[in-house]
Amino acid sequence: MTQKNVCVVVTSRASYARIKSLLSAIQGHDSLRLQLVVAASALLHRYGSVVDVIESDGFKPNATVHVVIEGTSPETMAASTGLAIIQLSSKFQDLKPDVVLTIADRYETMATAIAASYMNIPLAHTQGGEVTGSIDDGVRNAVSRLAQLHLVSTDQSRSRLIQMGEDPTHVKLTGCPSIDLIANTSLDTDGLLDQYGGVGLEVDLTQPYLVVLQHPVTTEYEHAFDQIAATLEAIKGLKIPTIWFWPNVDAGSDEISKGLRRFREQTRPDYVHFYRNFTPEDFVRLIANCACLVGNSSAAIREGSFLGTPAVNIGTRQHGRERGDNVIDVQPKPPDIITAIKTQLAHGRYHRSSLYGDGKAGRRIADALAEPLPPIQKSLTY
Amino acid sequence: MTQKNVCVVVTSRASYARIKSLLSAIQGHDSLRLQLVVAASALLHRYGSVVDVIESDGFKPNATVHVVIEGTSPETMAASTGLAIIQLSSKFQDLKPDVVLTIADRYETMATAIAASYMNIPLAHTQGGEVTGSIDDGVRNAVSRLAQLHLVSTDQSRSRLIQMGEDPTHVKLTGCPSIDLIANTSLDTDGLLDQYGGVGLEVDLTQPYLVVLQHPVTTEYEHAFDQIAATLEAIKGLKIPTIWFWPNVDAGSDEISKGLRRFREQTRPDYVHFYRNFTPEDFVRLIANCACLVGNSSAAIREGSFLGTPAVNIGTRQHGRERGDNVIDVQPKPPDIITAIKTQLAHGRYHRSSLYGDGKAGRRIADALAEPLPPIQKSLTY
Amino acid sequence: MTQKNVCVVVTSRASYARIKSLLSAIQGHDSLRLQLVVAASALLHRYGSVVDVIESDGFKPNATVHVVIEGTSPETMAASTGLAIIQLSSKFQDLKPDVVLTIADRYETMATAIAASYMNIPLAHTQGGEVTGSIDDGVRNAVSRLAQLHLVSTDQSRSRLIQMGEDPTHVKLTGCPSIDLIANTSLDTDGLLDQYGGVGLEVDLTQPYLVVLQHPVTTEYEHAFDQIAATLEAIKGLKIPTIWFWPNVDAGSDEISKGLRRFREQTRPDYVHFYRNFTPEDFVRLIANCACLVGNSSAAIREGSFLGTPAVNIGTRQHGRERGDNVIDVQPKPPDIITAIKTQLAHGRYHRSSLYGDGKAGRRIADALAEPLPPIQKSLTY
Amino acid sequence: MTQKNVCVVVTSRASYARIKSLLSAIQGHDSLRLQLVVAASALLHRYGSVVDVIESDGFKPNATVHVVIEGTSPETMAASTGLAIIQLSSKFQDLKPDVVLTIADRYETMATAIAASYMNIPLAHTQGGEVTGSIDDGVRNAVSRLAQLHLVSTDQSRSRLIQMGEDPTHVKLTGCPSIDLIANTSLDTDGLLDQYGGVGLEVDLTQPYLVVLQHPVTTEYEHAFDQIAATLEAIKGLKIPTIWFWPNVDAGSDEISKGLRRFREQTRPDYVHFYRNFTPEDFVRLIANCACLVGNSSAAIREGSFLGTPAVNIGTRQHGRERGDNVIDVQPKPPDIITAIKTQLAHGRYHRSSLYGDGKAGRRIADALAEPLPPIQKSLTY
Repeated sequence: MTQKNVCVVVTSRASYARIKSLLSAIQGHDSLRLQLVVAASALLHRYGSVVDVIESDGFKPNATVHVVIEGTSPETMAASTGLAIIQLSSKFQDLKPDVVLTIADRYETMATAIAASYMNIPLAHTQGGEVTGSIDDGVRNAVSRLAQLHLVSTDQSRSRLIQMGEDPTHVKLTGCPSIDLIANTSLDTDGLLDQYGGVGLEVDLTQPYLVVLQHPVTTEYEHAFDQIAATLEAIKGLKIPTIWFWPNVDAGSDEISKGLRRFREQTRPDYVHFYRNFTPEDFVRLIANCACLVGNSSAAIREGSFLGTPAVNIGTRQHGRERGDNVIDVQPKPPDIITAIKTQLAHGRYHRSSLYGDGKAGRRIADALAEPLPPIQKSLTY
Repeated sequence: MTQKNVCVVVTSRASYARIKSLLSAIQGHDSLRLQLVVAASALLHRYGSVVDVIESDGFKPNATVHVVIEGTSPETMAASTGLAIIQLSSKFQDLKPDVVLTIADRYETMATAIAASYMNIPLAHTQGGEVTGSIDDGVRNAVSRLAQLHLVSTDQSRSRLIQMGEDPTHVKLTGCPSIDLIANTSLDTDGLLDQYGGVGLEVDLTQPYLVVLQHPVTTEYEHAFDQIAATLEAIKGLKIPTIWFWPNVDAGSDEISKGLRRFREQTRPDYVHFYRNFTPEDFVRLIANCACLVGNSSAAIREGSFLGTPAVNIGTRQHGRERGDNVIDVQPKPPDIITAIKTQLAHGRYHRSSLYGDGKAGRRIADALAEPLPPIQKSLTY
Repeated sequence: MTQKNVCVVVTSRASYARIKSLLSAIQGHDSLRLQLVVAASALLHRYGSVVDVIESDGFKPNATVHVVIEGTSPETMAASTGLAIIQLSSKFQDLKPDVVLTIADRYETMATAIAASYMNIPLAHTQGGEVTGSIDDGVRNAVSRLAQLHLVSTDQSRSRLIQMGEDPTHVKLTGCPSIDLIANTSLDTDGLLDQYGGVGLEVDLTQPYLVVLQHPVTTEYEHAFDQIAATLEAIKGLKIPTIWFWPNVDAGSDEISKGLRRFREQTRPDYVHFYRNFTPEDFVRLIANCACLVGNSSAAIREGSFLGTPAVNIGTRQHGRERGDNVIDVQPKPPDIITAIKTQLAHGRYHRSSLYGDGKAGRRIADALAEPLPPIQKSLTY
Repeated sequence: MTQKNVCVVVTSRASYARIKSLLSAIQGHDSLRLQLVVAASALLHRYGSVVDVIESDGFKPNATVHVVIEGTSPETMAASTGLAIIQLSSKFQDLKPDVVLTIADRYETMATAIAASYMNIPLAHTQGGEVTGSIDDGVRNAVSRLAQLHLVSTDQSRSRLIQMGEDPTHVKLTGCPSIDLIANTSLDTDGLLDQYGGVGLEVDLTQPYLVVLQHPVTTEYEHAFDQIAATLEAIKGLKIPTIWFWPNVDAGSDEISKGLRRFREQTRPDYVHFYRNFTPEDFVRLIANCACLVGNSSAAIREGSFLGTPAVNIGTRQHGRERGDNVIDVQPKPPDIITAIKTQLAHGRYHRSSLYGDGKAGRRIADALAEPLPPIQKSLTY
């Protein structure tokens, strides 16, 4: 029997964590053959050389594609998208995949979708139908219109796609593979930090600690510096041991990095340790065990709901995303952030929610990909 | 009062005809200033140097952008989209428009939408909510998800966008500017062909004649040669005086051009005249007066409905598009095409339909653009 | 023994003819493995789909690269060069050649050279040290400065490169592979034209006939139309059976094509047949046998000198190129062109000259590539 | 009288210092109008936001062009060159310069040269005819073959270009504008460091201190990490107060940055201060006053010869560059570096040399640009 070539394009730390269990499921599936393209910030040292993690996990990229034009301004994000389309279409021409899978809502997600669409390659998409803040909503919805097969995380997401006119047969509720990762990972934190360098305090993971992830909001990128300053001010007020991650590459991330560097140089804080990148599993361990997850990462909402991790979500970036009980939303104002963190520290862990999946998404998606694919020409239902 | 900069990106013969009345309306509007970008096939001799027509109509392009990578394969369409994003984002950086307007559903439409979106420039879109065949549907819908302001042609289009979750306040039923062009053009055909060269028979416009426009279907581009062969066979069977236009640039257009050239060289037909390009007005005159419009152009359905022109629509390219009574749909089979043309010749002209507009779309769109723009961050309604 | 990967980038009709015997010699060499990249106009129908000829000759491209941005203006030539660098560097990354070979002096030659240089891949170059007119001189010399191994056609070319400071050890006088092609081709013209379509008169090859090849001069591209008009006027004055080839893709080629089309439509000449492309061998047969070769192609000088074909070279494009006795140079003025053609018709064939090679270049170049390559870091001698 | 538009493309910290006095001279010249394009690393925060320095010096960029594709691998250097050609040709199309000036030998220098050449814009070039190590030699020489006007720094450079066949009339010995900067700058170091942040020790400039600049060697980029390690080891051995600059963006610079960061984190040296960028004048002050300049920057040789600064040049990057007495060359081995630095500390300052100019280069170059430009079509002399 001939196998179906499934080309997955992984472009960032976050997208790898959200797809890793699927990569394994594809590799283990009799009817599927994995074609792995690693691109964009997943290749860059500044963003933690995710490609090295991918390779040490036993996946061998079929192609690597450099597309990040430095500058992290809106213009370079647009131009990087253009460059990604040029480079990915060339790789698709070589790889001749039967189906391309694109993840979530980043600019490379869009580039992947456009390259596949114009090359008449069926497109599968994860995380369609979700709602968040920022330009990501528009991108995610646009990609859904180009995709033939939708592999969604929540029941509400499925309903939204169907209401938009997508054929219910091709909208599969699978859960998110990021939850698989949690379900299959021992959450023991022993020796967790040993292999990571990073800068600053050595955090004792047996004591309460915070984890901060704050990314720029691309539609408010000119406020990135002020927004990170508010969070820094709050953490400075609390002086609880804190593990802080550098931001994703996006319009505004230079401003955030600048804020972090300036804070470090001026304050020389002895209660913060900065890291670039963890393996997805180690990251899960870290947040499973932390006293509170702070910032605007979707991990607080997605992985956090399954883990029951108390979380403080700052600003508009996750606006509209379905969430469990574990999240308190606040404005980017230091006193509000401090109060919310204290509330969460007092509350402690929450009950597990399977809002974003039950831990079997990878296998379900692989099975969906192994079935006959929807026709390339979609008919929407109104 | 400061004027709002409205940047319109015109990329082809068809998109110019569908926007010309709006360009005039923007120029004549107190609150608006036109920024005209001419790009892609609108710059190319092979596709009729539409830029020359635009300039002789009195519009002065603020920028021209070459983005067509030769090859008209799926891969080059994707890569051209990428190149267009790179080039357009650079021009938007220079022009700093307050709003960008993109037209319909071509790959450059998508490129324009992506460049504007990642640069946080509000996006207005015409022809959203329509349904047709081919990849155009996916592209059109994806662009709608990125656009903040929708300027739609038909009532049904408006309903579809609202059902997809777009805010009804920002979905304006304006009609299509292509109808304005008809309403404002004298349909007299005297001396119409004098200024155009082209190859073949001199057609007498006072006698019954056919007009053929057949473009490749991008999702079926490998059948382009066979599809054009069917139409050529039918026209050869009828031997009625025929005016035939070269196709748009798209995956498959090389195949169609090859079919036309081979037909011309082998058959040396004395009943066909080939043309590359007409002004939009002359094109309207030509089809207003023709006995039957044949092929798969949307002009048969859009302009044709207002003009009451009998039309034979071949194949899947216009599948799903709202149509008036003037259209007979057929498969790409010579006998079916011949029968349908004969039926239309027997029927003669149809009554005017205002399905796609009443002739005042340009002014309505200009007024909509002059109002405060929707927020860049959309909230969809479910 | 491991074989050395030799990557040859073929980008046009002319460059294929100038390298074909080398491709065979590499394939037949124990120490070498051929990696063939076909790019640019060699892929395009408009320029004769040279890739089809290459494949029917038994060569299998390892990669194809679309880089021609339509418009044939100076800006699109520059941008196409940029796109070619992006695409070729991606292919070199995949193919990992031990040495890249680039041909002559076209913009893709430059793109190939730059991609290889920045990727630290040794670069071999044919036709270095020659002198011609137009921007080609600058490009050819610039490529020579980037190349480590020079495979030159004439003794004088070798001297020039050494005088420029190139290490004599790495400047090999091999002759031009285009001469190999002639030496190995039967020059019989029986049935030569049967397989080619083209437009116009059926030429009887047993009677005297002209062959015309006229390309735009890129530094004078705005005069392209006038220049082709002069040649057309001369041919119209002579009315000798003429085989005319469409021009290469370059700034100005649209103007030349326009001139040819207009001439054909207005004059409907019964003494000219237009062709797009011949196999290199058939082209050699055609010019070996013709009464006079007219235009500004280097074939008149290069292949013509070995074949002894009477030639009339028009304008500046070949200015400075070493030539044998077979060439008469004229200005682009109809009377001068007519007089020169008549002189050549009266003279008849010339004696063979081995100025550009003796027919064994391909094997010599393959042997040179099989030897240890020069160091990537050149030391020039002054 | 109409002014001649002179477009200067500045792309890095180094190229700005090497051209600043010319920018002023063009602005002050009656016959010239400055068109300033700022591109590549000159726009990036990671490389010191040189564009901010340029603007605070009173120059207003006519265009900014983002072209740096992250990854600093050979492949991304090639692809960035391609992207630079695409973007610059678009800007040249808008600006319509009468002459383009390109600086030295970086990849953006090449991109500028190619864009101008294919657009038939006369090209002026500084630093032609010099000899250094690495790929820069090939690039510099290739650019010289594309340039019409050569504005050289040394007599020997002039001779080399003439020997290569360049017309002596168009090879002007002007000296290097970097020397003008020195001649016109007060070398007082009072308060010099106040405005710069950076990381580490506060250096007392009235005491002996070292300055280190070490860039990757692009043809040896895989050794970048080892090479920087040798220098770090030497400095660690000496423990003299040291001012260290982050490297240029090039293949290998990520490795160097990694080496520096690791050194800083592991050693926490109290004798080093790291800086990203100085104004050119402040940089001159700093090295005019330092006890020894260490690394592989051309500043040690160029500016250093005029300033009489003792310098230790490490490795092959400056191989072949003309130098004064102030330079000791060593291999990248810690003991050799230490010995050489000690020798220089013992020697103290050297006498001024005008090898690279006398401080009037900017005005001479402006005058040369104001004269009638050489013809676009060069004739080399052999």
